[in-house]
Order: sequence, then structure tokens, then C-alpha cells
Amino acid sequence: MSIEKFMALIVHKYGGTSMGSTERIQNVARRVAKWHRAGHRMVVVPSAMSGETNRLLGLAKEITETPDPRELDQIAATGEQVSVGLLALALQKQGVKARSYTGWQVPVRTNSAYTKARIESIDEKRVLGDLDAGYVVVITGFQGLDDQGSVTTLGRGGSDTSAVAIAAALKAEECLIYTDVDGVYTTDPRVEPEARRLAKITFEEMLEMASLGSKVLQIRSVEFAGKYRVRTRVLSSLTDPEVNLEQEAQSGTLITYEDDETMEQAVISGIAFNRDEAKITVAGVPDRPGIASKILGPVAAANIDVDMIIQNASHDGMTDFSFTVHRNELQKALAVLSDKVQPEIQARDISSDGQICKVSVVGIGMRSHVGVASQMFETLAAEGINIQMISTSEIKISVVIADKYMELAVRSLHKAFGLADESHAA
Amino acid sequence: MSIEKFMALIVHKYGGTSMGSTERIQNVARRVAKWHRAGHRMVVVPSAMSGETNRLLGLAKEITETPDPRELDQIAATGEQVSVGLLALALQKQGVKARSYTGWQVPVRTNSAYTKARIESIDEKRVLGDLDAGYVVVITGFQGLDDQGSVTTLGRGGSDTSAVAIAAALKAEECLIYTDVDGVYTTDPRVEPEARRLAKITFEEMLEMASLGSKVLQIRSVEFAGKYRVRTRVLSSLTDPEVNLEQEAQSGTLITYEDDETMEQAVISGIAFNRDEAKITVAGVPDRPGIASKILGPVAAANIDVDMIIQNASHDGMTDFSFTVHRNELQKALAVLSDKVQPEIQARDISSDGQICKVSVVGIGMRSHVGVASQMFETLAAEGINIQMISTSEIKISVVIADKYMELAVRSLHKAFGLADESHAA
Repeated sequence: MSIEKFMALIVHKYGGTSMGSTERIQNVARRVAKWHRAGHRMVVVPSAMSGETNRLLGLAKEITETPDPRELDQIAATGEQVSVGLLALALQKQGVKARSYTGWQVPVRTNSAYTKARIESIDEKRVLGDLDAGYVVVITGFQGLDDQGSVTTLGRGGSDTSAVAIAAALKAEECLIYTDVDGVYTTDPRVEPEARRLAKITFEEMLEMASLGSKVLQIRSVEFAGKYRVRTRVLSSLTDPEVNLEQEAQSGTLITYEDDETMEQAVISGIAFNRDEAKITVAGVPDRPGIASKILGPVAAANIDVDMIIQNASHDGMTDFSFTVHRNELQKALAVLSDKVQPEIQARDISSDGQICKVSVVGIGMRSHVGVASQMFETLAAEGINIQMISTSEIKISVVIADKYMELAVRSLHKAFGLADESHAA
Repeated sequence: MSIEKFMALIVHKYGGTSMGSTERIQNVARRVAKWHRAGHRMVVVPSAMSGETNRLLGLAKEITETPDPRELDQIAATGEQVSVGLLALALQKQGVKARSYTGWQVPVRTNSAYTKARIESIDEKRVLGDLDAGYVVVITGFQGLDDQGSVTTLGRGGSDTSAVAIAAALKAEECLIYTDVDGVYTTDPRVEPEARRLAKITFEEMLEMASLGSKVLQIRSVEFAGKYRVRTRVLSSLTDPEVNLEQEAQSGTLITYEDDETMEQAVISGIAFNRDEAKITVAGVPDRPGIASKILGPVAAANIDVDMIIQNASHDGMTDFSFTVHRNELQKALAVLSDKVQPEIQARDISSDGQICKVSVVGIGMRSHVGVASQMFETLAAEGINIQMISTSEIKISVVIADKYMELAVRSLHKAFGLADESHAA
């Protein structure tokens, strides 16, 4: 089923850079108008103009370092409201009937977790009515309405999630995420110039890539896409808006689902990495039941997310316990450990390392191939890179190594797994 | 009845200059917190940060010169939404419980006349519930919700109207309009340095002053105040926020209603003026029934507001017909006259004068005093100022004179009517 062959309901999402000026907004309108004229029923979800959300949050921060999240959302949601109005005007200037809606107007209903709300339902009636009447409908990303009638936002990158959720609610044929990269790459081309764009990636791989630090799509949008099996495509907003529609509709990277089509799977699809984490080691603690929760319970209670967790083999009834947290939360985590954990467990030592990075290989083919882990470890060993922590899932292997080896590790793994080969790429 | 003597429900309105920076917003919060701590139930209606509405409308104008008014309102309403969120944060920082609402959240219901909507009803339940729970409630000015669920705005200066309407709906004890002047003056102090602040002004006088060009209050807010008899006070936002509350509550200018209290009325309360108008004269038209509507009908149909209208005495069955329009609409009005009116009526000549001004004396005492008009005309004649048009109502007399005499006319009338005397002033 390919979208250019018949009139389909299509959702476009445009990021802040694409909406960065009134001139760029008019380019977005030209692109959307092209799809509309081709007969598609169009819904567009734009982000706030680039810099706008930061400006708004900056104003709030000038007043208080600890703003009430409800009021923060009241403020932050305005960036997208301006965008939808401007884009509707630009579409009308293109001769297209267009109407804008905020999250509360649709409405997009969420829970009340201000600044990181989750979408609970989307009322499709009003939007479908407008589409039937020939309108392009422009809907704010990033925001919704809770059952108190307050404005909520979904957190950074939430417009991707809005777009996919709206596509799911409207049963759209495809959700196209226009961004400033032209798709999902085997790894970041700024680190490995031989990185190749993938024409397709499975949902599971995309989920791992997103959670491991690939910034192309927000992870919750990928979860949403998977849950509702939304055909989602990541593609470039930097092409000429008037480029041939059939060509545009096949560009970028399509997120697929396993039973969609039979594909010959590469063992490894990509390499993700990030420098966002820091490692904490609690050394010399008694190795007895409950020690993990004694250490991590207070950390979780302080709302600090823990990523990797390692407990070494016991030695003389004592063990070392390591875990990673976001680098921004390292000091907070250390404070919790010294104030709340250490008095309880009497560890020999608590140390931390902020100079680490996490490098991961991801591939759905791992399920049916053995030896991926050993190939990864050999490759790193051959470069003299020491592995500090290891974590695996069905389709990814992550290692923590010293920060300074990150680029070397990414490039050597990219080569070792043959990711620059044409056969893997778009 | 004076507000400082008991716990009252009070509405404060702050203009864009008072909300111009996060520092100024914190000053507003300090002032409101002072009133709250004194035991009053507080509702605050702030404008957008100064410059913000112009910035937003400017973005729309970059896209199109003829924007869809619904989308324009969607965009423009965000300025006040940011303000209420920031002010709620600033109040919370002062240790005050505070919650912000947009127009649609209250809701403030309006008709669908986008960019110049009129308030139809205000639901007071949610706000009163929050006040009962000890919150300061911060509500956006300038905007509401129509029965399509779309955002509307009330037009420039609409936040004054919102504040007064909210005060009426909540049956507030008083609505305090904080602004960058410290009250209503006998005339503009920039033109007449001896102008005095009025401690009180009647609603009828304020209405005339507002419609004649005094920029202190938006005219629709005055109409609203009169309709619901809202005690409304105009006062300075530039005083120290910590100034003694009793003193602040008596400052500025209070708009009163005739049966409120017996007051010794001055004959003339103030002198208003504006340079916004231009005069059009249609000379040598047949003086027969229907000629006025033949001339003004097409002008009204083109949505051009006509202010003063004069038809001179007939001479040989021919007459001259003059009227004033807003200076910005002069060219449009002349085009209507030459395209649609002249072919019908065959006037001898159509001329215009953009170098005029209107000067008015306003006073409720005029009702019981004769001779105000002749005193006004004599004063102007003594200065050699020729009167081009005259228009009167029960409590005001307006004249059109040459623009260049405006300051001279205002100052000589101010003196002639004794407006600098203590007995008239605050």
C-alpha cells in the first residue's frame, strides 16, 4: 500500500527549525499545499518557532527556579499556538482552506502530569468534519488538556508524539515527520562520515535507537507508533517544497512493523551513543538480599532515573554495586546516597565518574544471530578500549566506556559490522 | 462604603507597561500580595507584556496583509496567556497561592466577531471556588471563547473591558485599573501643565472623555462599568508596591455613579482633544430629503465610521454637507465618494482637510448650567481661533478647529473654565 496511489489521510509534523521564521513557515505551507492539491486529506502538526519554547521557559526561570509545573505549561503551550495560527494563515495565502486548533480545542486529553503529560485520548470528530469540508487542519503539538481543564504539555520533543498520536486517532495512512536530517542513519554522520541512511528500520530498532540517544525521534512518539502501528516516516524538511511528491513520499526512513513485509534483516542496523550519563559505584557493601533496593529505593524516591545497573560478584560476603544516572542528576544522586543510603548500609566507599559514555549496537537480526556480543567486545578490545559496564536486551548491546574513546568506538564498530555497505543502507 | 474597611472581592488590572519585564511582573505580584495579605479576595487581570501583541501581529502581517481574523485571534491571545502564567509564578514566589486562567478556561464567552468580539457572559463559579479556597486568581484580559470553541479577542485595550466585566460578573467591590498615569486629568498635562487630577469623575463624563480621545480607559470598559455600575478606579502602577494600602486605595480617580453620593459638581470636569480625524466637505448638493443618506450610506457600507456631521443652511436650493472620519480612512472615504456618491448626486465639489483637530469640554454640570457653549465660543474667538464644526450632547460640546491651534485652544479653555482650581481637583 503506497500513499501516492490514492487519496489518503496524511499527517505531517514539522519541527521548530522548519517553523523558524515566517519565510520558512511559508515554505511549510507550500509543501503541505502540494500534498493537499494532490488530493490528500491533510493534518499538520507544527512545533513552536525555534527558540520560542526556550524563551518562554527562560522568562519563567527569571521569576523562580522552581516554577509550578501547571503555570509552566500554561506559558510554554503558547509557542505552538502561535505556530498553528501562522501556518493556517500561510496555507490560506496558498489558496488552501485551513483552520488551526490548539490541544484543548481538539481536544487532546492527557493526564495531569504537567510538563510531562501523557496523551489519554484524542477526539477525532471535529478534525474529521473539517477534513470532510475540504480544510487542511493544523493542530498544536506538545500539548493537551487535563480533566481539570488545565493546559498540559508533553515535555521536550512532545510534538513528535502529538503527531503520531493524532495519526493513530485519525487512522491516518502515514505520519511524516519532517526534520532537519533526511532520515535515520546507521550512526551519527558527524562521528562516522561513512554512516548511511536506512530506507527502513523496524519499530523495535527505532525504539532502542531513540532510548539510547539517537535524537531523530522522541522515544514516546516511537512507543506510540508501535502501540498503534502507525506508519511513520522521518524525512527532510530542507528539500525544495515543490519537489516531486512521489519522490518525496519515498524519501527518508520508514519505520516498519515485523509483519508488514518480509525483509532481509541486517544483523545490526545502527550504532547509538550518548554522553548524558554518569556512573556511581557503591563499593564494599554486604551482599545480602535487599541491598539493591536499599541503595536504589531512595534514589528512585528522589525522582532520579537510573539506567544501567550492575552488581559484581560477591567477595568475602561483600560486593560492589554500580549504576548510571543522567549526568545532570549526579550531584543530587550523590547527596541522596550520602544522606539517606550510607547511614543504612555503611558502604566502604561511594565514588562517581562523569567522564563516561554509552555506546550501543542495535539490530533486530541479533535475535537469530549469535556472536554479536563477542564481536563487539573483540572490536573494542582491539582498539584498547576498556569496557566498564555491559547491558543487553534482545536487540541491543550497550557498553559503558571512557568518554574519550567514544568516537573511536563508534567508528570501529560501524566498520566491524559492515554498516557502510550499500546492502544495509537506503 | 470604602474598600479598606473589610475583606472585599477586588479586581486589579495591570497594563502592558506594568507587565513589561519579569522584574516588573514581580512588582505587580508584590502589590497584589499586599492586598491579599490584608484579607481581600483578589482577582488580577494582566495585559500582555508590552510590545508582545505588536510582535505577534507583526508575524502574522509578514505572512499576509489580510489575515483571517480567527487565526489572528488564535495568535494574539497568546500574549496574555504568557502574562497570567508568569504572574501566577511571581505570586507563588511571594508565598501566595495563585492560579491562572485563560479566557476559555473561565470561560469568558463572547460573540464570534474576531479581533473585536464582545463579551456575552462570564462563568463565575470556577473563580469563586478558587477564591473560597484562598487562591489569588489571575485571568487573561483581552480574550474569550465563542460558541464554536474558537479563541476571540476584544480588540486593542480590551483588557480594561475584561477586568471591568469580570468585576461585574463577580460582583466585586471595586475594579482598580493600574496604569502608567495616576488618574484622569482635567486635560492632558503634556499640553496644559496646570492640568489637575480629578479625585472623582462621573461615569457619563468618563464615557465622553474616553470617546473624545482621552486614552486613559478604553471606551468599552467604561460602557461596561456603567452598565453594571462597577466601582472603577484608575490609579498608578508606578508607586512603590509596598506603599500603604489605605493610601493606595484612595489614590487615582474613581468613576462614580450619580446616585452613589451627593457631590458638588463642577460645571466642566475636563477637556478632551484628538487629532485622529479628517474633515470632508461635499459642496453644492441639492437640498432635498434623502441627500444625507445618499452621501453617508455608501460610506457606512464601506465600514467607515463617521463622527461629526454638519449640514449647512440651504442657499438657492443647494447646501454644503460636511462630516469627519478617522484620518486613516480619509483616502478610502474619498474613493467611495468619487466612485459611488458623486455619480448619483452631482455635487459641485468634494474637498477634504486632514489638518484639523477636535477639542471638547465635558461636564455633567452642563445639564444645569447655561452659557457653557457661549463661554467656550467666546474663549476661542478671543484667541482668534475659527470654529469649523460644532457638535453637542447633554454633557459635552465639541468643536473642530485647525490642527495648529489645538494646544492654544486646550490651554485657554482650561483656564477659562477654572480647571486648575483646587476645588475641582484631587
